[in-house]
Amino acid sequence: MTQNIYDQENFFQGYARLPRSISGLDAAPEWPSLRAQLPARLGRVVDLGCGYGWFARWARQSGAASVFALDVSEKMLARARVTTVDPAISYERADLEMLELPAGSFDLAYSSLALHYIANLDRLIATVSRAVVPGGAFVFSIEHPLLTAPTVQEWLPHPAGHTIWPLDSYLDEGSRTRDWLASGVIKQHRTLATYLNTLVRHGFVIRHVEEWGPSAADLAAHPEWAKDHQRPPFLLVSARRQAPDVTP
Amino acid sequence: MTQNIYDQENFFQGYARLPRSISGLDAAPEWPSLRAQLPARLGRVVDLGCGYGWFARWARQSGAASVFALDVSEKMLARARVTTVDPAISYERADLEMLELPAGSFDLAYSSLALHYIANLDRLIATVSRAVVPGGAFVFSIEHPLLTAPTVQEWLPHPAGHTIWPLDSYLDEGSRTRDWLASGVIKQHRTLATYLNTLVRHGFVIRHVEEWGPSAADLAAHPEWAKDHQRPPFLLVSARRQAPDVTP
Repeated sequence: MTQNIYDQENFFQGYARLPRSISGLDAAPEWPSLRAQLPARLGRVVDLGCGYGWFARWARQSGAASVFALDVSEKMLARARVTTVDPAISYERADLEMLELPAGSFDLAYSSLALHYIANLDRLIATVSRAVVPGGAFVFSIEHPLLTAPTVQEWLPHPAGHTIWPLDSYLDEGSRTRDWLASGVIKQHRTLATYLNTLVRHGFVIRHVEEWGPSAADLAAHPEWAKDHQRPPFLLVSARRQAPDVTP
Repeated sequence: MTQNIYDQENFFQGYARLPRSISGLDAAPEWPSLRAQLPARLGRVVDLGCGYGWFARWARQSGAASVFALDVSEKMLARARVTTVDPAISYERADLEMLELPAGSFDLAYSSLALHYIANLDRLIATVSRAVVPGGAFVFSIEHPLLTAPTVQEWLPHPAGHTIWPLDSYLDEGSRTRDWLASGVIKQHRTLATYLNTLVRHGFVIRHVEEWGPSAADLAAHPEWAKDHQRPPFLLVSARRQAPDVTP
């Protein structure tokens, strides 16, 4: 199964102190861009990697009929449950590597910063494709492949004076072990092309791709984000489920 | 109009010495991948940036009904014409920035390593979208945005010992002036997302995206290409024209 780093006490404590953990969606800089990709009618939602349940609660406030919110972390789910009073949200423990979902049962599949932990992406996308109705949406964010690729993930001064992101190993897909909040966090690096081609192969039509970086307004408010304009930290993708008999 | 660097004598002489200029398609490492994206039936082809006409002649040998082969360079067209004896290939001078094409007249639009010279990509893609019949294909290669982005386009040793590509400025779209075969060559940097979103906006469905780098077999034959496995030099995209009344 997936490494369940979120249930390691030191990771969980560190994660709990991130702005997006304390303050929710509005503290996530990429949230306005991700929200802009969501369909007007949310319908029946499945949330892959729901964490504290911020999105599940937002979706219900925004008209979702129901939210099936999944996470591998017991600690995250426990906190999500105690902060939620809504019978139309069901939190359930699930390992996305082995996920089974009922066919044609959701209008929107959503995932925020979870898919880069998944080793068998092809299986998961196939599962999501069956679970979403034709015409339904799949909107997700991941760590940008430029972030996950390098051997050393640290900004570096270039001899010419500017700051660079030390890219290598971009085409070497596979696991990357990093120290982030805890030591030995395992993430899966894949190219941007692999994400898109996997979606297409399983019957999704790409609607929008965003390599998220801070806008001018973001930078005015958060000058400390300037480096992320040099190398986008997040990739946002919006896709639509085709009817099964239409080949892309 | 586009900077017509190919008609500068020093650039043209340098370009004429590149392997792909001397030996044609088979000397271009990305050609097998690009060819694999072409439709089985080529039909009526428009070639945007035809250079010496290698692709136009290959397309005719591979069953294309006709090839409308366009380039901004008089020198390239002159050489293409003297090496071609085929009334179904018409070479014509055209600035892709101001291109006009007859509507619904082509089954395949093809472009090899030309679009990263175009400042007004949106206008060109709109023109191509009108020119290709519904169900028709648009297959192209460009320099990968990772290649065009950085302030300094040179490999660098990392303090940890490996070689890195010094990425910065990825989200700063616009012209980049480089010295390549001649000084002051102007290329246009755009993000990968911008290429894809522009296609989608103009009615194309993304079929395949390839961030081309050398395969293991390529590396066995060409160990000098190893760095391109760290940072793909080419981006290949295959898209299909939707019927005008279908929104993606």
